[in-house]
Amino acid sequence: MKAQDPQGFSQLDAAGRLRHLITLAGLDGDLVRELLARAQHYVTRPGQVPAHGKDLAGFTVANLFTEPSTRTRASFELAAKRLSADVVNVDVMLSSRVKGESMLDTIYTLQAMDVDVFVIRDAQPGVTQYVAEHVADHVSVVSGGEAHLSHPTQGLLDALTMLQFKGGFRDLVVSIVGDIRHSRVARSAAQVLGILGVGELRLIGPDELMPDAHEFPGAQRFSSLDAGIDHADVVMILRIQNERMEQARIPDAAGYFERFGLTPERLRRARPEAIVMHPGPMNRGVEIASEVADGPQSVIRRQVANGVAVRMAVLSHLAAARRSRG
Amino acid sequence: MKAQDPQGFSQLDAAGRLRHLITLAGLDGDLVRELLARAQHYVTRPGQVPAHGKDLAGFTVANLFTEPSTRTRASFELAAKRLSADVVNVDVMLSSRVKGESMLDTIYTLQAMDVDVFVIRDAQPGVTQYVAEHVADHVSVVSGGEAHLSHPTQGLLDALTMLQFKGGFRDLVVSIVGDIRHSRVARSAAQVLGILGVGELRLIGPDELMPDAHEFPGAQRFSSLDAGIDHADVVMILRIQNERMEQARIPDAAGYFERFGLTPERLRRARPEAIVMHPGPMNRGVEIASEVADGPQSVIRRQVANGVAVRMAVLSHLAAARRSRG
Amino acid sequence: MKAQDPQGFSQLDAAGRLRHLITLAGLDGDLVRELLARAQHYVTRPGQVPAHGKDLAGFTVANLFTEPSTRTRASFELAAKRLSADVVNVDVMLSSRVKGESMLDTIYTLQAMDVDVFVIRDAQPGVTQYVAEHVADHVSVVSGGEAHLSHPTQGLLDALTMLQFKGGFRDLVVSIVGDIRHSRVARSAAQVLGILGVGELRLIGPDELMPDAHEFPGAQRFSSLDAGIDHADVVMILRIQNERMEQARIPDAAGYFERFGLTPERLRRARPEAIVMHPGPMNRGVEIASEVADGPQSVIRRQVANGVAVRMAVLSHLAAARRSRG
Repeated sequence: MKAQDPQGFSQLDAAGRLRHLITLAGLDGDLVRELLARAQHYVTRPGQVPAHGKDLAGFTVANLFTEPSTRTRASFELAAKRLSADVVNVDVMLSSRVKGESMLDTIYTLQAMDVDVFVIRDAQPGVTQYVAEHVADHVSVVSGGEAHLSHPTQGLLDALTMLQFKGGFRDLVVSIVGDIRHSRVARSAAQVLGILGVGELRLIGPDELMPDAHEFPGAQRFSSLDAGIDHADVVMILRIQNERMEQARIPDAAGYFERFGLTPERLRRARPEAIVMHPGPMNRGVEIASEVADGPQSVIRRQVANGVAVRMAVLSHLAAARRSRG
Repeated sequence: MKAQDPQGFSQLDAAGRLRHLITLAGLDGDLVRELLARAQHYVTRPGQVPAHGKDLAGFTVANLFTEPSTRTRASFELAAKRLSADVVNVDVMLSSRVKGESMLDTIYTLQAMDVDVFVIRDAQPGVTQYVAEHVADHVSVVSGGEAHLSHPTQGLLDALTMLQFKGGFRDLVVSIVGDIRHSRVARSAAQVLGILGVGELRLIGPDELMPDAHEFPGAQRFSSLDAGIDHADVVMILRIQNERMEQARIPDAAGYFERFGLTPERLRRARPEAIVMHPGPMNRGVEIASEVADGPQSVIRRQVANGVAVRMAVLSHLAAARRSRG
Repeated sequence: MKAQDPQGFSQLDAAGRLRHLITLAGLDGDLVRELLARAQHYVTRPGQVPAHGKDLAGFTVANLFTEPSTRTRASFELAAKRLSADVVNVDVMLSSRVKGESMLDTIYTLQAMDVDVFVIRDAQPGVTQYVAEHVADHVSVVSGGEAHLSHPTQGLLDALTMLQFKGGFRDLVVSIVGDIRHSRVARSAAQVLGILGVGELRLIGPDELMPDAHEFPGAQRFSSLDAGIDHADVVMILRIQNERMEQARIPDAAGYFERFGLTPERLRRARPEAIVMHPGPMNRGVEIASEVADGPQSVIRRQVANGVAVRMAVLSHLAAARRSRG
């Protein structure tokens, strides 16, 4: 164990730049806006050659994904490759290791091979920060999704998507619909929206799937979808898992769709120019109707495209911050 | 769903170049010859540095292989990398998705990450064309093998191999031996040979494994190997699977070898300079004797080498066609 | 089968350079020293951009790992990529193939795709040499670990680590502790130390896990850890597997730790500046105490870093040797 900041772990360096990206909680608004601007710089139109760069030339990125995640892993992999990094995918179950030390041995081994950035997805809370606390000074850890707690690049891509379509956050009404309680997507969205000063944040879902009272401070809570999306500018639908329906005493997918599925009719309660978001993968006909998912208000593909841009921005920020630390 | 050509799906663009490669059926002879010439340009001798290029620099190729296929996946991966593409391998079971929409969501997600070319192998008929019908205008789909129906790059590599050794097709007698009924290799070979005007195509195998009467128009059918390879210039042996022997009421591998295994003795019935082909992986001692597989008339390794060249040719053709569409 | 050297298989070319690396046994001291010097050239300090080069530009390296091996596979993959090779990872069980011919067909297929270097890990003795005996003249085979017999790049990285910390081998006392009998790490270490003229080699472990009498000529054998590490300069701890404890009539991990676990107290019997090595992955609290693994005498991370450098050295030596053969 090395010396830690007396205030506890910090994902920032002395100059306030990111050394790691574990959570969006507590990030400075200027830093978030810089990351979004950097990401916007990497956005290209479909059919154009996507942005490439040399920012990570000579760097090695290791993807350690311990939950199945084709899309997020591929997104990070392409972001790293398009910035000229060497990339290795390592199939490893960090948190399933018998002891924490054994988990760190895996990390230290890869670090000794000159891995510069670890992208880690792990189902166990605290693993990404734990790794970040123990890597060498020049090494960065980026969360690819941590339990129900944090999915920071998802939060950034969601914010970037809202910014592109809405131009700002101050007057925005954002409604998040579904299993808020178990959603890292919802938590990271709430964090980034708090930082950027969103007008109004609403959480909609069955009572049993609402977060604890102290979580999501300032957000309004609704158990009725119709009420919750009234005049919303952004409707963010979450994926629902079957075992959660049971927990919410909803008999089946049809029952969930009836209560919380976003249909074209329901969407009419939101503002006319409202956008519809979903982190994917979608359960069509369960939490969202296909007409909505593929409809003119859906920006779901744009979220995916922004995901690569945001991950490129985070990686290039980390590389630049490291270079300026010397 | 977007507007489709009134004649139905076309894998060609308005200028007659490939936008996709789903099947060889119906391709123009000039186009096939152009692809073969382009592939020949990528052929190098063993031990030389293989051909490399920048034709796909900035492009992203995603390999979606839903059947186990080490060799074909590696061949496409190397073809793409040697043309400087960014490559991602995605382990995904497209057709096992519950609904077609869910399959398309996977495709659209990767497309939103700026994947330019999908290489897809799937056991379910129609999946590759279905994907091709739905991707964006600038995106291409290449079949890596579709059910029993189509394996177009295999057909092209087989044609290239015959061209290299025989110089042309007009006077050629080609005998395909084995489980024709379930073979995408045989179908794509028959298609490309039809386009290129082969002299004579013969199908040899147990009656139960012969294709339906309307398939393979113009081909002669034989249930005797000796009769079928008489004076053949090319003997193409297909892999036989155990469950098919049963279907053909052949007790075991030895029984199959006795009736349809290509031995040196039997090969003497073909023309003296006949070549022996096999798409691999071989069941030695079942459909082919090792003496033949490793003998002087075998061009099986050359087929594999041509496979990379053909895949490079297809990828670079697709990239050039896209560039010229602007 | 092609003509072989009358003396049997040789992994060297006519000029005495490596064509393959199957084993360290019998290698010339000058060659080993050249490889170590070349590897040292690739060593960088943690936090520096690791060494990169173009030595393998245009070359293709295929990793065929048939035992799970995240760390060694990643090490070879990064070594090859940093030298600009095209890399394919192939999940294939070579020795599980029904027949040797079928194994070779897999190799020949990849060779026909212009794979230049096969890195092979296989649990069955003889597989790597068998492959090396059959590949084309321009193709190289590098062992990534062969049964209990050979792990040549591990031996080289161990030697490089000793050289860095001890400056030479002549006066060195090296103690290897654990399941020597089943250890390819111990065998390759003994071979390279023999070649480099180590002062004294000691083997320590339960009698049941000692190698046969004729193996490890010149090494002293100890069944007591305390006696075996007395005044040692290098203490190399091996990983112990549970089934081996049983074989050694040791009831459990605690019992093994009591007899053969390296603790800070026991380490005091070695020379004060002795270094502690372990090939990884470590069973902390079984064969090594965490205080030792993470202590000031541990060079375990350095071994890992040297592993990449050694693999780059081997690959670049092979490429240079091939170029000079023309």
